[in-house]
Amino acid sequence: MPAAIHFYFDFLSPYGYLGSIGIETVAARHGRAVEWRPMLLGINALKVMGIRPLNETPLKAPYLKRDVPRTARYMGIPIVTHDTMLAPLPAARAFAWLADDDAGLAKRFGQAIYRAHWAEGRNMSTPDAVAGEAATLGIDADALLAAIETDGVKNRLKERVQDSIEAGVFGTPTFVVDGEMFWGTDRLDMVDRWLETGGF
Amino acid sequence: MPAAIHFYFDFLSPYGYLGSIGIETVAARHGRAVEWRPMLLGINALKVMGIRPLNETPLKAPYLKRDVPRTARYMGIPIVTHDTMLAPLPAARAFAWLADDDAGLAKRFGQAIYRAHWAEGRNMSTPDAVAGEAATLGIDADALLAAIETDGVKNRLKERVQDSIEAGVFGTPTFVVDGEMFWGTDRLDMVDRWLETGGF
Repeated sequence: MPAAIHFYFDFLSPYGYLGSIGIETVAARHGRAVEWRPMLLGINALKVMGIRPLNETPLKAPYLKRDVPRTARYMGIPIVTHDTMLAPLPAARAFAWLADDDAGLAKRFGQAIYRAHWAEGRNMSTPDAVAGEAATLGIDADALLAAIETDGVKNRLKERVQDSIEAGVFGTPTFVVDGEMFWGTDRLDMVDRWLETGGF
Repeated sequence: MPAAIHFYFDFLSPYGYLGSIGIETVAARHGRAVEWRPMLLGINALKVMGIRPLNETPLKAPYLKRDVPRTARYMGIPIVTHDTMLAPLPAARAFAWLADDDAGLAKRFGQAIYRAHWAEGRNMSTPDAVAGEAATLGIDADALLAAIETDGVKNRLKERVQDSIEAGVFGTPTFVVDGEMFWGTDRLDMVDRWLETGGF
């Protein structure tokens, strides 16, 4: 059984959303599973790398506003535009809580949050929105709302994010294939060839 | 005659070098010319965007060190590693000086500088190295060395860089196709489809 591809994600990133869909096609072609691992741009990028939020960066901000929907059209994936940035902590904590018991359920939850926010336009910033979405997967909404307020779950997410920093992750989507790291939806073709050839 | 693709470059960027070769294949496929336009990461990125030099950025620096030669192998383009960063001003000023009279010669000069530095490993940071390379194209080395010390040529480069900022350019390689901007070697496939379809 070949190792799973590690997919590092942050719910707030539209490129993360696009990558979460794109990597499934590539992974399936090579009989690989995809394992989701959380990162937080607010920690990995802003605090550790010391960069500014992209949506406040001159020149880059207007480019990204145009590139995101264009990349979605290029990939054939639906996407909506939001006026405000997604606040990722409620959903990220819920993911960390679910992942400890059932990585498969956590991944389906992650896909549902991405789809609700980025394909269907329902803002997933609040605990209630996240719990409502989780309920559609049979997850106990009250248990989720209670769990994400506990120090145990908050610390679990912090640990996972620290793991991502130690793995060298600074952006999303990041894909790690047999220890080799690729950053960006635009690296999916390279990931595909890496899997096909065993590395180059 | 369809409009030329604008290619914004900085000699110090290995991705700029890779993009300078990659865009020729894409442009040729669609009967387009490629017109070179200078930008300076030290101005567009560091001063205007306010970002840190990538090679000093935690997490990203080690990734780029690995990604540059990997991307070159993926594209089938030779590349060498340098211990120090190229100082781009002598070559960029020489480009600006040449481009005023002969855009074609300026582009061939740019390709020669990129090849000498990034494919053949001869550091192109000094006026003498740049002039020596220019001489192989029949350019008068002494005239070049004199020209790049003049305020007229220094200001010409500043104006061209300001033009790039006004065009929204923040990184290299940047390709502009009929007004549509694409940033990164990893956008070449998208540029290809844009040219094929007329936009999407």
